[in-house]
Amino acid sequence: MLKDLFTPCLILDRGKLDNNIRKIKSIVSKRKIDFRPHLKTAKCLEITKLLVKEFGQRAMVSTIEELEQLKSSGINDFLYSVAIVPNKLSRIAKNLSNDCKITVSVDNISTAQELVAFYKNTGHRITAVIELDLDGHRSGVRPYANEQLIKISKCLDEFDLFRGVMSHAGESYGLSNEKDINSCAKNEADQTLIAAETIEKAGINCELVTIGSTPTALSGCKNIGITELRAGVFIFFDLVQSGVGVCELNEIALSVLTTVISINREIDAIIVDSGWMALSRDRGTSSQEIDYGYGQVCNENGELIDDLIVTNVQQEHGIIQVREGSDAKLPNLKPGDLLRILPNHACATAAAHSCYHVVNNADDSIKIWNRFNGW
Amino acid sequence: MLKDLFTPCLILDRGKLDNNIRKIKSIVSKRKIDFRPHLKTAKCLEITKLLVKEFGQRAMVSTIEELEQLKSSGINDFLYSVAIVPNKLSRIAKNLSNDCKITVSVDNISTAQELVAFYKNTGHRITAVIELDLDGHRSGVRPYANEQLIKISKCLDEFDLFRGVMSHAGESYGLSNEKDINSCAKNEADQTLIAAETIEKAGINCELVTIGSTPTALSGCKNIGITELRAGVFIFFDLVQSGVGVCELNEIALSVLTTVISINREIDAIIVDSGWMALSRDRGTSSQEIDYGYGQVCNENGELIDDLIVTNVQQEHGIIQVREGSDAKLPNLKPGDLLRILPNHACATAAAHSCYHVVNNADDSIKIWNRFNGW
Repeated sequence: MLKDLFTPCLILDRGKLDNNIRKIKSIVSKRKIDFRPHLKTAKCLEITKLLVKEFGQRAMVSTIEELEQLKSSGINDFLYSVAIVPNKLSRIAKNLSNDCKITVSVDNISTAQELVAFYKNTGHRITAVIELDLDGHRSGVRPYANEQLIKISKCLDEFDLFRGVMSHAGESYGLSNEKDINSCAKNEADQTLIAAETIEKAGINCELVTIGSTPTALSGCKNIGITELRAGVFIFFDLVQSGVGVCELNEIALSVLTTVISINREIDAIIVDSGWMALSRDRGTSSQEIDYGYGQVCNENGELIDDLIVTNVQQEHGIIQVREGSDAKLPNLKPGDLLRILPNHACATAAAHSCYHVVNNADDSIKIWNRFNGW
Repeated sequence: MLKDLFTPCLILDRGKLDNNIRKIKSIVSKRKIDFRPHLKTAKCLEITKLLVKEFGQRAMVSTIEELEQLKSSGINDFLYSVAIVPNKLSRIAKNLSNDCKITVSVDNISTAQELVAFYKNTGHRITAVIELDLDGHRSGVRPYANEQLIKISKCLDEFDLFRGVMSHAGESYGLSNEKDINSCAKNEADQTLIAAETIEKAGINCELVTIGSTPTALSGCKNIGITELRAGVFIFFDLVQSGVGVCELNEIALSVLTTVISINREIDAIIVDSGWMALSRDRGTSSQEIDYGYGQVCNENGELIDDLIVTNVQQEHGIIQVREGSDAKLPNLKPGDLLRILPNHACATAAAHSCYHVVNNADDSIKIWNRFNGW
């Protein structure tokens, strides 16, 4: 029973989780393309096992900790999403085995050379893709930087360490309609294929041509020539993704259970025991059409309470009010009542908690699935 | 050696920590007032033991987890800072003993009655203070709400569960000069004394008249009549506190060690392996005179690099650039180089990590002090 839980805590709706996984499964099945889930959102063994069952033994990670904690899930083909720095290679190598391949990403020739040197010195075969930078805002090689692409891929390919190219349409999170997302997805695929072609023309095989973000992976883009789609946050969805337009509010599988501390009539607010330690400081919806403050409020059963949002947070206090300009009324609650808060960004809110309390409409039992953070 | 650490990770400068503790020790010694450190910032046994040595066996906590993890430090008088909800009482009671007192805060009569009922039913004596709300923005009783103050204190006092009044000048974090902070500190003390007087006049003893925040505790306010000062973030300090004016940048004891992934010449940026997972999303300096983005950058030795700040963060990527409008130059760095980033808000950045790497100028060794999160 929810009322037996110590608040604040994280609730995961199992039915919604399963539906969200099925949603992307149906897309990749139709397109006959490999899918590589990003494990950074859940950081959880039980959820990883569900993903392995649907999508096979490949996954993306954002930390070595994820790789180490989740390799017992059956995954044998890890892609590390952050362009590698050489001082991480020896810890990665400890996780290599005959049946577990680990691929990192590189974006400059000096790191590629270090990877080769590491292989020559230790015999540990850490393979790599070239990270592409589609919009010039992060790490990565630009898709038209032919000389760099060929230099890096040749350097790696000579020792059979090269696997292909990887891109991520990060800017898709800033969009809000189907047309723009489709065009962003097309651009992601087109630019990645241009880079892959450049490398293939130089006589080097791109086994992996991997792209993705939750919005572009869910788009209508056909992705011809792409070998693999990636996405992470789709398992839970969140308010930002609903603002982008790729999910409905009632598909969001994650919420924070919270207890009412008191009612402040002076400012028409409900004070709850979830501050930024429980919700995160993410304000990802602040630049979207609908700003949910620090989260949309639901009743104990997860049903939306119209226009009731977390307007401010302190370390352990949340201030819930009716959205400015709305004529909705503050619900009639008393100290001790329970509420649930939908997250702006599932990755950030989940990171504030050490486990998921998995609820299932089919029965009353609550399962505990542990999660972890760290690098 | 710092270069042997796996980045991102948290560095704690032991010399600065000791100086910061001495700074507040000298203030409370002169004023002959009790000091109650807030353990929510560090959440660390070793640091709690240092505080017990300087200030005695009392402390403030923001979670029951802190109380459970830190009671082995020698503390026997815990004050729980968040107004209590009744479903937390039974877990709190498990930690009571003949030599460990736990005091919660209440802000309404129904919770006070529940506390009394809990005592009558179980025999567990959880004492309470009345939380005062100085500015009408959170939970708490208003200092002039005489009827409420007397009703709650009488209800508790009848069963010897009443200890006094507690206030927190949260608005002090928004100030930026000594005069305003002093006036805020005076207001915090004055309003709290008014409430205490109301209760005392009704024949009920206020053993505890406790006030504080890092800025007001460090102010010049004399605090006559107040029994206890509280503060938390002063142990580390941070960029927000430097903006308030109660510390210098070189007093900040906490930083995140990070590795350069690559240099993006297109946008004149250094890309590092610390994103919001390592730095937090706190933007507390955004409304201050100097905005440090997601953190001020230092070199590997902790020396400031002028006007170099983290301008943007993604989950595991930090984007470092020269502050807009500055004529400082991007330092000449290469992939693999180390940097250190000072936090906007020490509590939030520390919460992103599982331990402190404690460095000491006196020697080269690095000690590991664990920390925890959760409720």
